[in-house]
Amino acid sequence: MNLSQGEIFLWELLGTAVLVMLGTGVVANNVLRKTNGNGGGVLFVNIGWAFAVFTGASLAAPTGAHLNPAITIAAAVADKTEWSDVPMYLLAQLLGGIIGAVLCWAVYKLQFDDHDEPGGTLGVFATIPQIPNKLWNTVTETLATFILVAWVLFSPVLKTGDKGQVLDLGNAALGYAGVAFVVLVIGTSLGGPTGYAINPVRDLGPRIAYAFILPIRGKGSPQWGYAWVPVVGPILGGLLAALLYNVYPDV
Amino acid sequence: MNLSQGEIFLWELLGTAVLVMLGTGVVANNVLRKTNGNGGGVLFVNIGWAFAVFTGASLAAPTGAHLNPAITIAAAVADKTEWSDVPMYLLAQLLGGIIGAVLCWAVYKLQFDDHDEPGGTLGVFATIPQIPNKLWNTVTETLATFILVAWVLFSPVLKTGDKGQVLDLGNAALGYAGVAFVVLVIGTSLGGPTGYAINPVRDLGPRIAYAFILPIRGKGSPQWGYAWVPVVGPILGGLLAALLYNVYPDV
Amino acid sequence: MNLSQGEIFLWELLGTAVLVMLGTGVVANNVLRKTNGNGGGVLFVNIGWAFAVFTGASLAAPTGAHLNPAITIAAAVADKTEWSDVPMYLLAQLLGGIIGAVLCWAVYKLQFDDHDEPGGTLGVFATIPQIPNKLWNTVTETLATFILVAWVLFSPVLKTGDKGQVLDLGNAALGYAGVAFVVLVIGTSLGGPTGYAINPVRDLGPRIAYAFILPIRGKGSPQWGYAWVPVVGPILGGLLAALLYNVYPDV
Amino acid sequence: MNLSQGEIFLWELLGTAVLVMLGTGVVANNVLRKTNGNGGGVLFVNIGWAFAVFTGASLAAPTGAHLNPAITIAAAVADKTEWSDVPMYLLAQLLGGIIGAVLCWAVYKLQFDDHDEPGGTLGVFATIPQIPNKLWNTVTETLATFILVAWVLFSPVLKTGDKGQVLDLGNAALGYAGVAFVVLVIGTSLGGPTGYAINPVRDLGPRIAYAFILPIRGKGSPQWGYAWVPVVGPILGGLLAALLYNVYPDV
Repeated sequence: MNLSQGEIFLWELLGTAVLVMLGTGVVANNVLRKTNGNGGGVLFVNIGWAFAVFTGASLAAPTGAHLNPAITIAAAVADKTEWSDVPMYLLAQLLGGIIGAVLCWAVYKLQFDDHDEPGGTLGVFATIPQIPNKLWNTVTETLATFILVAWVLFSPVLKTGDKGQVLDLGNAALGYAGVAFVVLVIGTSLGGPTGYAINPVRDLGPRIAYAFILPIRGKGSPQWGYAWVPVVGPILGGLLAALLYNVYPDV
Repeated sequence: MNLSQGEIFLWELLGTAVLVMLGTGVVANNVLRKTNGNGGGVLFVNIGWAFAVFTGASLAAPTGAHLNPAITIAAAVADKTEWSDVPMYLLAQLLGGIIGAVLCWAVYKLQFDDHDEPGGTLGVFATIPQIPNKLWNTVTETLATFILVAWVLFSPVLKTGDKGQVLDLGNAALGYAGVAFVVLVIGTSLGGPTGYAINPVRDLGPRIAYAFILPIRGKGSPQWGYAWVPVVGPILGGLLAALLYNVYPDV
Repeated sequence: MNLSQGEIFLWELLGTAVLVMLGTGVVANNVLRKTNGNGGGVLFVNIGWAFAVFTGASLAAPTGAHLNPAITIAAAVADKTEWSDVPMYLLAQLLGGIIGAVLCWAVYKLQFDDHDEPGGTLGVFATIPQIPNKLWNTVTETLATFILVAWVLFSPVLKTGDKGQVLDLGNAALGYAGVAFVVLVIGTSLGGPTGYAINPVRDLGPRIAYAFILPIRGKGSPQWGYAWVPVVGPILGGLLAALLYNVYPDV
Repeated sequence: MNLSQGEIFLWELLGTAVLVMLGTGVVANNVLRKTNGNGGGVLFVNIGWAFAVFTGASLAAPTGAHLNPAITIAAAVADKTEWSDVPMYLLAQLLGGIIGAVLCWAVYKLQFDDHDEPGGTLGVFATIPQIPNKLWNTVTETLATFILVAWVLFSPVLKTGDKGQVLDLGNAALGYAGVAFVVLVIGTSLGGPTGYAINPVRDLGPRIAYAFILPIRGKGSPQWGYAWVPVVGPILGGLLAALLYNVYPDV
């Protein structure tokens, strides 16, 4: 199916905004005071992110539900997406990431106003490494994203797409749940060191919103020095997966 | 398929009663003393509500499993339900909500009798904002319900219905699990500030039961001043989703 | 499909033994000392039981995976199982429940030997009410089992069976997951007061094994005075669901 | 479908490496300091392992996704895999287990460097019994693996394979989720005493990596004296399941 540039823009924007709104929302629920989810814990956060991806991906089915530059670029390298469509995918994804962060803020506006601890709110929106080290943090993000993109490219659960489609599940009931399960295990298993961005716009979009848009009291530094790691690591991981896909035996 | 008014009434009543019985039940299990679930935590409650919706929706499949006025009204606006059927849907849903609360009380009757803390039981049945603010609480409920209804309208998982059906999954095994996953992430991610009513009758039905029907000792105030927020917010969110659905590119 | 009495016996025995072994296993893991699951909590136990039912039911697909007298009797009342097959179903289920308890004990043999607290082990095998009251405990078990059996009879997820089959999912991938989700929410939402037996043999089989077979040190009383409640309550709940099924509009 | 030896090698290697990387990863996240998952708990670990298997199995679909010598040997006994293919399956699985452990280490390299407690890291990679007793630990591993392999052989969810295929799900969306659910409940219910290796290479591969390859500070003993239990127990359990499969009534 051929999508217009406008269709790509609208569906990817919608899907990414919902993904980021729900994903940043679970962290807000976990860390802010006076919420029902305060102190919900790591599994709570991992489950929230997993089904945030399920929900956003289900909504963006018409474009193949990339919602992630690492997937879009890998899909182009694997000849599953036209290179000429890539810029529009990326633009929509980044804008979606920013809008999703704003929507999360609106949901938790009263809690952000109540939060009197200077700093401490960046982690709702952007990833922060537990032990900062640019090289090894990048390794972690690269390997974690490799798993995600390899699964998207190789899994028979999703092998129904034609050119221009990556996550095209057609009428397959619940196929996107598979993506949620992979994101869940990436969170539980590989998310320990860096908070598993595994998606450049999931990190950069909300970080931009935090730094420049959201009226949050007592903001901390947006930590721009780290911001390239969750962009470069995921893109490298996606490229690795696409290269493996291109050379692997075709069974 | 054309349903009679009586069929709409019975299926929606059954589905909503089960949904509310199970949903209020997990909160009762979490907060009342001398239960196996006491202190089960936020993920426990979120998972309970998610599969409460799964169970009620599976049972009410013949009517499209609305179980929620926000879905029924949005479905009518999106031309997927006849306006002439809407009143019967709403009536059955509200009665189902009241009956579900009574059934939850029957299950936990001994625990309610044992509960000696004045107040503290309203939260089993109705939502209470963590930080009361009518405007922003409404924003939260509107945005959370927008996600639910947008997913119901847009998701390819569910795109098998014809006129008169919203959540018609036919023989698709487990399609309703998708709804559960969306309710789960709405709970984890957007439920922090207001307890995610996202359904007018899920809140109003049990609140009526609590205020006027259930013989609970040391009841607190039913907080009628807040009761319109989880009615208006979800309906606004559903309308927003239906409007978006009506203008979005048809792919 | 016509099953011989021997086939009914073998499949129901296998499925129920696995169901009970896994279900009692998660409680053993939660309450015994020196296990990896000690103190795992209520959600841990609820999830274990839910997928115990999934696993046992998947294995017993050829007989319709009843594994529960409340389902078998309701299926006969609803004209989905031959009355002449009922005795063999019940016999296999009860023996399966006993065998499952023995297998659970074998898995946790070292932990049972290490357990030096007199009593405290009955709860691994049989249900114990939080607040003993024969009438209301029966109400709770009846309502909880009503949900389970109503879902099995009404849900379109499962509406593929013909006579002699209840949970016949044919080739529907993962259909039994729906049963697991219903058991999960029954646990989170209705399991608070009595520990949700919702199955006579799940309680009676292991209670018999505990009382008469298993060499556990410092056993407590098998509490025979309560033992009829998780037998009678579930059967009543199943009958209610079957009666509703027989009178409900056929859509 | 006939697979070449090279195809078997590559797909089983990929799938097992991903399975072990993600499975050991969740334990690393749970036990190492300065991770987001520190102290995540037993359900967190069980969920991680369950979807680690889902992810690895999805990726290795072309070979039937054995990823486990207990499954390969049982499949050969049950005449579902050629005996002549077995050595290549086992070799790929063992190498995959070693590689997966190395990848886990790379993800958590900074955390391993930070870990200043001598010992305590073996448990990330290999299983350790809570109460050491070779006989009963073997019984536990045998029974737990019996459940896994019996489900793989008997479950209608998976009964689409022909010769040479065990877990061949074809286009069935999400069929591998069933395997995840079974691994989840084995973890919650039977994992208490020995940590549920239920797979010789899941234990032996990472144990070899820990003992001979990984540059971890203050390593503890690899406990070679126990290492045969999680090899022999699972193979015995798989054999039991295959024998049962060969004699059970064919319905």
